[in-house]
Amino acid sequence: MTEHPPVVAIIGAGFGGLRVARALRDTAVKIVLIDRHNYHLFQPLLYQVATAGLSPMDIAYPVRAIFHNQPNVEFRLAEATGADLAAKTLRLSTGDLPYDYLVLAVGGMTHYFGLDSVAKHAFGLKDVDDAVAIRNHLLKIFELAAQESDTEKRRAMLTFVVAGGGPTGVESAGALSELVRMVLAKDYARLHFNEARVVLLEATDRLLANFPESLRKATTETLRHKHVEVRFGAAVSDYDGHRILLKNGDALPTHTLIWAAGIRAASLTCGLGLRQGRQGRIVVTPTLQAPDHPELFVIGDAACLDAGGEPLPMVAPVAMQQAETAAGNIRRMINGQPCVTFIYKDSGSLATIGRHQAVAQLGKLRFSGFVAWVLWLTVHLLQLIGFRNKLMVMINWTWEYWSYDRAIRLITKE
Amino acid sequence: MTEHPPVVAIIGAGFGGLRVARALRDTAVKIVLIDRHNYHLFQPLLYQVATAGLSPMDIAYPVRAIFHNQPNVEFRLAEATGADLAAKTLRLSTGDLPYDYLVLAVGGMTHYFGLDSVAKHAFGLKDVDDAVAIRNHLLKIFELAAQESDTEKRRAMLTFVVAGGGPTGVESAGALSELVRMVLAKDYARLHFNEARVVLLEATDRLLANFPESLRKATTETLRHKHVEVRFGAAVSDYDGHRILLKNGDALPTHTLIWAAGIRAASLTCGLGLRQGRQGRIVVTPTLQAPDHPELFVIGDAACLDAGGEPLPMVAPVAMQQAETAAGNIRRMINGQPCVTFIYKDSGSLATIGRHQAVAQLGKLRFSGFVAWVLWLTVHLLQLIGFRNKLMVMINWTWEYWSYDRAIRLITKE
Repeated sequence: MTEHPPVVAIIGAGFGGLRVARALRDTAVKIVLIDRHNYHLFQPLLYQVATAGLSPMDIAYPVRAIFHNQPNVEFRLAEATGADLAAKTLRLSTGDLPYDYLVLAVGGMTHYFGLDSVAKHAFGLKDVDDAVAIRNHLLKIFELAAQESDTEKRRAMLTFVVAGGGPTGVESAGALSELVRMVLAKDYARLHFNEARVVLLEATDRLLANFPESLRKATTETLRHKHVEVRFGAAVSDYDGHRILLKNGDALPTHTLIWAAGIRAASLTCGLGLRQGRQGRIVVTPTLQAPDHPELFVIGDAACLDAGGEPLPMVAPVAMQQAETAAGNIRRMINGQPCVTFIYKDSGSLATIGRHQAVAQLGKLRFSGFVAWVLWLTVHLLQLIGFRNKLMVMINWTWEYWSYDRAIRLITKE
Repeated sequence: MTEHPPVVAIIGAGFGGLRVARALRDTAVKIVLIDRHNYHLFQPLLYQVATAGLSPMDIAYPVRAIFHNQPNVEFRLAEATGADLAAKTLRLSTGDLPYDYLVLAVGGMTHYFGLDSVAKHAFGLKDVDDAVAIRNHLLKIFELAAQESDTEKRRAMLTFVVAGGGPTGVESAGALSELVRMVLAKDYARLHFNEARVVLLEATDRLLANFPESLRKATTETLRHKHVEVRFGAAVSDYDGHRILLKNGDALPTHTLIWAAGIRAASLTCGLGLRQGRQGRIVVTPTLQAPDHPELFVIGDAACLDAGGEPLPMVAPVAMQQAETAAGNIRRMINGQPCVTFIYKDSGSLATIGRHQAVAQLGKLRFSGFVAWVLWLTVHLLQLIGFRNKLMVMINWTWEYWSYDRAIRLITKE
């Protein structure tokens, strides 16, 4: 009698999904890994694609290449549209898939908080298409501004606004300011660069809310030193593609709004009939299972797990650590053992603010400036998948560092 | 009294247009260089972007970066839609531009010979968007084939057809066969690769018609050795996206037709009221001027110049050599001197057929195989603009060579 190994379906090839599949390498299961894209994306560097510093190919890695040497993984390029949890069947754009265990590692998406006009006209920054759209837009608007003689219109074209003072917003604003002042100033010798502005809007009174106060202050100072206008208490209420309206009534004429002010769990979390917590995240047990569905694990941005009154943050380390626990629990269930609870070990936080500047918090250690920046570079380089990607990113960074150039400033589609 | 320097408008930042601008570096003119894209594209390596070997960023270079140190060049990102030759005014998508001298270096576009169904369903291979569309399609159809259980349907999905036995067709077919057999075979371990076919269709009885017979024969043999089915006397008459119909009545079920069978001058050449020769090319005087319009120079693919009964071929060396002559003649006209006639110096031809294989003709020297391949690599690497691009291409090639891998196999848009 031959027995089929249990099927573990994993939705999402992000930090969490990949790690679950890897952790089940030596377990007698058939893993079906599903993603809408055929690549794993290293999201922490996405803003560098948006600001023409890296190519999408540098931070993306084909999923099939990752699992060449792991025969129990089958990859499917498909969209997961829903699931019949009672029948343990997943609905994919390419057909149905019965499973024994399901891991939801679907990640997050941009959250516009019901601001439809913003959703329509602003740029999100969650996937490759978003980043390439921003890069094309930035380079194109400079070309248009160079041919625009009306001063008011030109100023609006050269005003670049980022909403949201979290890591993505801070990193984007810093990189954008350097792109404008160090790189494009050389390309557009006839433009007046005192007309160009980079504005960072934050609704509360603090940047990088998860960091200690000393580092938050250092961040604001560094950004201002890099000519980023940081505005606190500035909540966007409307944007028509030409003018941002703030809740306090102020208006800001601009053609560019990058929305880094909100993130929520990917939309698949909504149609499953499971209880959702804040930001659409699925409420899970301490063992990372959906209540009443022990075969369904939810990890990363899609999972809402309380940790001392607050849900765990939507960051890669949480997803990766939860992946190990979820994989271990699946193995335990197969072996008839009880599941263990997840305990998050906070390994620290890092954010960069551009050339020579970053902030780091590692346990009780807090520092900012050049050393934090070198640490940031090293950590991100090491975490990239694949020797070639590491090499390419290192070359691009070195190139930019010495030449004050951004190599990828190509407008690739309309 | 200050006198304005004469305005030289150049349309097209390809091999010809760039060279004209460079050659006028020390001439007292105002150069306005116009292109639809903000980058110069190294077209000879475009097929490697289509077959996932190189990233678009590796073979494109921002035009503004090329002319950082040449203050008499102004770049305009715009589409040239027409011209009033009598009023010496160019119509751009961003407004009118009066000129004293005009250089048409608009290059070529895919020619479908009135086959509308082919134009609609086949892939051209003339710009970055074409190449990225081919790459995405190839990778996606493999993903679909991997999930397709119907053998007939799967065979049609895994049949890849290239039409046209010129350099682009030969190079594409060779690279495609290697992509399928060496790279993707590893990614799709469950697919039967004897179901995959690469077919090269040529309407005449020869490949690389401009090469001597010994090299043409070597090319056919090498391609067949690389598992490319080479079919002579095979002219496409219809293609609906699923089935190619040949003039001889044969049908070929396939989802992929790459059309490298025809090229014509870019469409701007049509609306100017100038006499056009074969392939829509503008008939020019031996001094590269349009008859009756001495201030209008036409070079490269857009120009039709008779050389011993045949128009000069549409290849980069012709465009680059004509650029030097056109620039010199503009300088001579400014100085009140007579224009000189253009003489083409054929420096030879090179075409690669994939790993370790190329054919080369240099004067009386003809050779094929490994040495020709190394020569091909070297020549193309040296001609790329920019140290970074050279480095990136070299790394990608080295990577592919040793790992039998293609790094850029990402599906980037739907």
